[in-house]
Amino acid sequence: MPTYEYQFTAPLHDIDAAGVMFFTHILSHAHNAYEAFMAEIGFELKCLIEENQHLPLIHTEATFLRPIRHGDSVTVRLQVATVGNTSFTVSYSFYDQNENKLAKVETSHVLISPYKGERRPLPDDLREALSNYLI
Amino acid sequence: MPTYEYQFTAPLHDIDAAGVMFFTHILSHAHNAYEAFMAEIGFELKCLIEENQHLPLIHTEATFLRPIRHGDSVTVRLQVATVGNTSFTVSYSFYDQNENKLAKVETSHVLISPYKGERRPLPDDLREALSNYLI
Amino acid sequence: MPTYEYQFTAPLHDIDAAGVMFFTHILSHAHNAYEAFMAEIGFELKCLIEENQHLPLIHTEATFLRPIRHGDSVTVRLQVATVGNTSFTVSYSFYDQNENKLAKVETSHVLISPYKGERRPLPDDLREALSNYLI
Amino acid sequence: MPTYEYQFTAPLHDIDAAGVMFFTHILSHAHNAYEAFMAEIGFELKCLIEENQHLPLIHTEATFLRPIRHGDSVTVRLQVATVGNTSFTVSYSFYDQNENKLAKVETSHVLISPYKGERRPLPDDLREALSNYLI
Repeated sequence: MPTYEYQFTAPLHDIDAAGVMFFTHILSHAHNAYEAFMAEIGFELKCLIEENQHLPLIHTEATFLRPIRHGDSVTVRLQVATVGNTSFTVSYSFYDQNENKLAKVETSHVLISPYKGERRPLPDDLREALSNYLI
Repeated sequence: MPTYEYQFTAPLHDIDAAGVMFFTHILSHAHNAYEAFMAEIGFELKCLIEENQHLPLIHTEATFLRPIRHGDSVTVRLQVATVGNTSFTVSYSFYDQNENKLAKVETSHVLISPYKGERRPLPDDLREALSNYLI
Repeated sequence: MPTYEYQFTAPLHDIDAAGVMFFTHILSHAHNAYEAFMAEIGFELKCLIEENQHLPLIHTEATFLRPIRHGDSVTVRLQVATVGNTSFTVSYSFYDQNENKLAKVETSHVLISPYKGERRPLPDDLREALSNYLI
Repeated sequence: MPTYEYQFTAPLHDIDAAGVMFFTHILSHAHNAYEAFMAEIGFELKCLIEENQHLPLIHTEATFLRPIRHGDSVTVRLQVATVGNTSFTVSYSFYDQNENKLAKVETSHVLISPYKGERRPLPDDLREALSNYLI
């Protein structure tokens, strides 16, 4: 069960007036992990966008278990939850240095043609590359 | 079925390299609507935090139906989906100027004591104020 | 000496771990004021970008006089500091509700052709519209 | 002339509707470099804030020379421009992979007591640590 790992340290500007990482920044770090993962498996988002292969999010869900505080070292473990015909779902688990689970995030993406906005089948090589990380 | 309305125009810096509002900014605008709503019903977040009544998010979900583009005028309609003993869930529907639904977001909050991190029952006046906006 | 006014309330997620608005968000609010001002004088950024008339920043400066805190009501007063042949500088003064000055920001913009990246003279109608707000 | 180096890859969500990194994100990356630098020289911002030693920005300046685009690998070279009695200025030069200079940023900080808001002299050990990186 291969997993892609991504790490970050919580910067000052991600922490809100209540002293914890504001939830949208947790989702941004999940997306940064997704960008790094996609480059790792050979599908750099920059190139996909240049080729008019957009993969917009259609759904996200997140559960926040423990607060992330300023300066915390966080590990994101990324796996692929599902690969469908035109969509896929990526799962991200956030851990602190003591392996306490901090958050769980999912993002679901579809492949569209940006001008028409119609869904298209995922290419076989992308389906295969994603499938290597299926939970 | 009272609804709280909140409006914004999509700024340049919320739009990403793919030409649409990056999804975390949609959630930030939902949170801005939540802050304005809480002030409207007499529970300004700033005051709650000063009184050590934190309402952190424990869960969020969002479905993105149509892209939000630079300069779009967006209306957020906020309602309360559930009010429990220690938690509540707020629902946000995003619409464009032609009443096309753009996105649906939910955020679930608990009341905690920030030093102990324990959940506490919601005060009666907050439960009542929220209940006026129940779906 | 006409001035364009723009107002905002400091949201939870602009406040950092030190309890004050993180400086880059002050600059983002300045840019939101700039976008609203440009629309007001008939040069909506969205339309300019669609017509390949980009106005990227080449310089910014900001002085921070007093902290902006969660929930503060802030007024931005915008004026045009200079209008040159290919560039212009916008000046933003931030005030609290008691007319205390909080911050002063300047942004300088040039008109370029995005594909070649060359500077172009500002069109006469833009120069005139900006000149109405010269300090 | 020692220099502290910091690297990042430009994520999708830092790129705006005009196709280039929005200027405030360039400043955020400068601040991330500053946080990493301060930890490297033994003054982790998190600890300083916990000890009520705040170092708020009083001034920033930035010049943007070339656009930063999605996926670009950027190196930030950080040096200390000045160390005064109660303040210091940090200088950041941004380069692409071909050593083209992309941007130059400066941030000036003072040491204050957050409750009184009064400036305090920088401690000797901080002055010394910063002085090792003077331009």
